[in-house]
Formats: sequence, C-alpha cells, structure tokens
Amino acid sequence: MSAKEGAKLFAAAKDGDFQAFAKLLTWLERASAEQALAIPELLQPEKAAFRLGITGPPGAGKSTIVGRLIGELRQRGVKVGVIAVDPSSPFSHGAILGDRIRYSEHALDQGVFIRSLGTRGSLGGLSSAAFLMARAFDACGFDLLLIETVGVGQTELDILHVADEVCVVLVPESGDSIQAMKAGLMEIADIFVVNKADRPGADGLAREIEAAIHDGESAKKIKVLKSVASEGQGIAELVDEVLSLQQSSKPLTNRSDSRRLREEAKALLRREWEREIDASLKGLKKPADLKSLVSK
Amino acid sequence: MSAKEGAKLFAAAKDGDFQAFAKLLTWLERASAEQALAIPELLQPEKAAFRLGITGPPGAGKSTIVGRLIGELRQRGVKVGVIAVDPSSPFSHGAILGDRIRYSEHALDQGVFIRSLGTRGSLGGLSSAAFLMARAFDACGFDLLLIETVGVGQTELDILHVADEVCVVLVPESGDSIQAMKAGLMEIADIFVVNKADRPGADGLAREIEAAIHDGESAKKIKVLKSVASEGQGIAELVDEVLSLQQSSKPLTNRSDSRRLREEAKALLRREWEREIDASLKGLKKPADLKSLVSK
Repeated sequence: MSAKEGAKLFAAAKDGDFQAFAKLLTWLERASAEQALAIPELLQPEKAAFRLGITGPPGAGKSTIVGRLIGELRQRGVKVGVIAVDPSSPFSHGAILGDRIRYSEHALDQGVFIRSLGTRGSLGGLSSAAFLMARAFDACGFDLLLIETVGVGQTELDILHVADEVCVVLVPESGDSIQAMKAGLMEIADIFVVNKADRPGADGLAREIEAAIHDGESAKKIKVLKSVASEGQGIAELVDEVLSLQQSSKPLTNRSDSRRLREEAKALLRREWEREIDASLKGLKKPADLKSLVSK
Repeated sequence: MSAKEGAKLFAAAKDGDFQAFAKLLTWLERASAEQALAIPELLQPEKAAFRLGITGPPGAGKSTIVGRLIGELRQRGVKVGVIAVDPSSPFSHGAILGDRIRYSEHALDQGVFIRSLGTRGSLGGLSSAAFLMARAFDACGFDLLLIETVGVGQTELDILHVADEVCVVLVPESGDSIQAMKAGLMEIADIFVVNKADRPGADGLAREIEAAIHDGESAKKIKVLKSVASEGQGIAELVDEVLSLQQSSKPLTNRSDSRRLREEAKALLRREWEREIDASLKGLKKPADLKSLVSK
C-alpha cells in the first residue's frame, strides 16, 4: 500500500470510475493518515458534499429512510453517497447488519455510492475512516453524503462529528429507550423524524419532542417531521428540509470549523496511536510490568 | 492531586473507611496511571474480588437484577462492590441514568459499595477508570465485584474486558434487538439470564439460546437461567451459579492473564494519550494544518 497507489485510485475515481472509488475508500481505511492526506484534493476539494448524519435507536427504520431518501434525491438529480456504520462485535469481529440488500435497487445507478463500514474492534478506526472517506466523497463530486449510524453507544455517536447536520429518527413505541436517548440525541438533532407514524402514539411523541425543543435553550429551529418510510410517506418533505438545511449552511469547501477540525485530527491521530500501541505491549507479562509501562 | 493523597486515601479505605474509599475511587478516576500504580497494593492485592460483568439491552432489567443480587449475596455474607456504567451523552456530558435510587436500600450496609461511572465524553476514560477502580475493590477486601454496563455500543462492551466472567441478561420481547445483539453477546456470555420470564416467549428464548450455545464451538459450559427479578424469582439460582463460577476460576490475586493485562495497559495508556492530545491540537486552524500534524 503506497501513496502512489492512492493517488492513482483517486485520479481514476475522480474521472467517474466507481470501481476505483470503491478501492480508494478501502485504501483510505488502511492507509496511514500521512499517506491519505498526501492527496491534495482530499484536503482542499473543489466542492464539498453536504453531510447529513442519520441516527436513532435500533429498529427505528433508519436504513429504510436512507433507501427512500436516495430514491427521492436521485429523482431531483442529486448525486448522493452513503456511509453506513455497522455495529460490529468487538469479540466476533463480524458485522451484524452486514448485508445492505435493501439498498440494492440503486446498485446500478452511477449517481449513488453506498459504503458499509464495520468497526472491526478498533475504537479509533471507525471515526478516522469515516472522516477520510467523507473527504473522498467531497473530492469526487458528490452533492450529499448520508452517514447512517445507530444512536446508541459512544463510539457510534462519535461518528456524527463527521456530519454537518444530524437527523434523529424515532418511533412511537420505543418507550424507555427513547426516554434514555433523548437526553443525548436532543442536543445533536437538527431534524427529528417520527417514523412508523401510522402507529399509535406518533402524534404524542411528536408533541413531546416539540415541547422538549421549546424548553431547550438552543436558538436553532429544529423541524419535527413524520414519516412512514416503508410506504414512502413523508420522504419528499424530509428531502425538502434537508436541501433547505444544505442551502443555509455556510460554504463548506474549506471546512475550517476548528472544533470539527480538531475532532478529525483526534480521530486520525488516535488511529495512528492504536496501530502503534500493540507492538509496545508485547513484553507485558505480569501486573508489575504495568507500572514501568506507565512511568515516564 | 498527588500520589501522597492517593496513598493516604488508600490506607484509610483499607481500614474500612467508606468515605475514604469513595474519595479514592474519584481520585483514581482523575489521577495519572503512574500516580495510581504507585500504590503497591493496587498492583499486588492480598486477594482479588471475583469480577462479574452484567450486560444486556436497555430495559432488560439489569439494575433490578443487580439490586437483587446484592441482597442475596449479603445474606450469604459476601462483601460486594458494584461499578455501574451510565450511558452518558458525549454531547450533553450528562449521565442519563445517574440516579441509582433503586440500590438505595443497601446504602447503609458496610458490606456493599456502589459506584456509578459516567463516560464523560472520553473514549478511553471509561475503561481505564473501571480497571483502576476494580483494583481498588480487590485491594480493599471485596469478595465480588459486579460491573453493570449496557450491552450496546463498542465502548460500553469494551468495559467487559475488566470482568472475569460475564452474565448476559435478555428479555423475551426484545425481538430484533436480541437478534442483533446475540452475534456479539453470544461470544462473551458465561451465564445467560432470561429475565421477565413470566412474559410470553421466555421458554422459547431460553431454548433458542440453548440451541445457539450448542451450535457454538466453545467448549465451556454456559448456563441459561430464568428470572423474574422484580419478584426476586431465580435470584438464588443465579447466585449459586455465580459463586460456582467464582470457585472454579483460577486464583485471581496475581492477574497475569496476559491478554487482559494488555487490555488494561491499553486502556491506561489511551487515557494518558487523550489527556495529552488536546494541547497538541490547539494550533489547528485550517484543513492544511492536518497534514503537518500527521506527518512525521
């Protein structure tokens, strides 16, 4: 794996070669940060994709919504990318939701690219890969990037640092789990979607969210939408809202938001650290060795 | 915060001063690994507590089970500690399940110590604090340490590296989420508990788990128990099983299992790394700065 290889893949991907783009993303997952950022256009793309995070509890219908969003966005001529983060077991190293079969209707469309990202047991690997891949979507001319991740667990939420805005998907019957999540998700949501809105309790949940938003100190205007994604209901309205958010975002090309830049740097450096640490732990045999290891 | 302060707190805690023990745990959360491991008995305790991880999806009744386990263990004269990991938002920095009011019946019992641990936005902080605190429970004469964590999310599961054995709690109606979790949780479970076993589907779930265990390649004997923790049903049987696991574990005092030792070292070093990294990112202003940061 060399910087040269990455540059070659990037050039082909930029020319519209989807196979090269797929290989580029894999290369970015494995390359060192130094190698990856040696491609100048990753740092300074001509334009940047608007990045929308999509999160919520398991079973809320995030993947269905993503599938429908792709369909609606394509109809409007938007070139759309997806990074779907699979919860994967740190123990089995196997992705649980590995098959993304429901997206397959878009497989032959050159205006859509979907990438599934497993965490593979590394805390830092997930975020750093997502940050670098998002830059590749920018540089290869995508208009919009959807980042789907389950809204439970800190690593999984951390990936939302990659996004410009976040859409939180909830369902009426989640009960306790919604209560638990709201505390965290309320802070990060720019849009709420009450999905499966044909079920009892949808209006109540929507009102509850509206009230919570109203109580919050945030000055930003947060929309609460309803959808039945499996039927395609509410998707056009959601796309309207997403495109309107994209319009009102400041120009994204030169992402200089320093807070986010720091998150990106941290993710990249953490991955480098994790790659180096294992070697230094090889000599560890007994508890007393811990002490010498942490002493400076 | 000094090493001297830690040594003083440790001495008092070892003499049975619960207030000092509480302060010691807070000190360990904040101290550097070097300071913490300067206390010799943390590295080489006279005896070690048997550490049981308790995990499962939100709403499975883990806290209820922990509360009941404490009651039953106390009746049998076991000195028991609890580290309860709160899912906390990396955004609001607030613990969602901060109040542990249901444990309050044990508040005045000197044979029980319960500590709630928030993640406070740090990926590495949680595990390292849990590892160090577990050593404090060892050194201060606890027989058994329960480590309660939600079984969703990688950071949350990572904390189970601290445990000797793991009890996975499931409920009949979890449906999809159980399916999703089994892939990861099957690998780490030493005991399964089907809680809320008075609800429909409990026997079916138990049979399903038995079948999955049977299909697995693992040679270890995994028990599947049923409980209605809110009524206290099944708790005595669970305690029997836990104490039997404790008996069959090899002597734990000198924890030299090198795989786990490496996990502990990694957790401690990661926390040190995270504490140092922010300073180095202060100068970060524009994307091009990323490049110089990752170049060696």
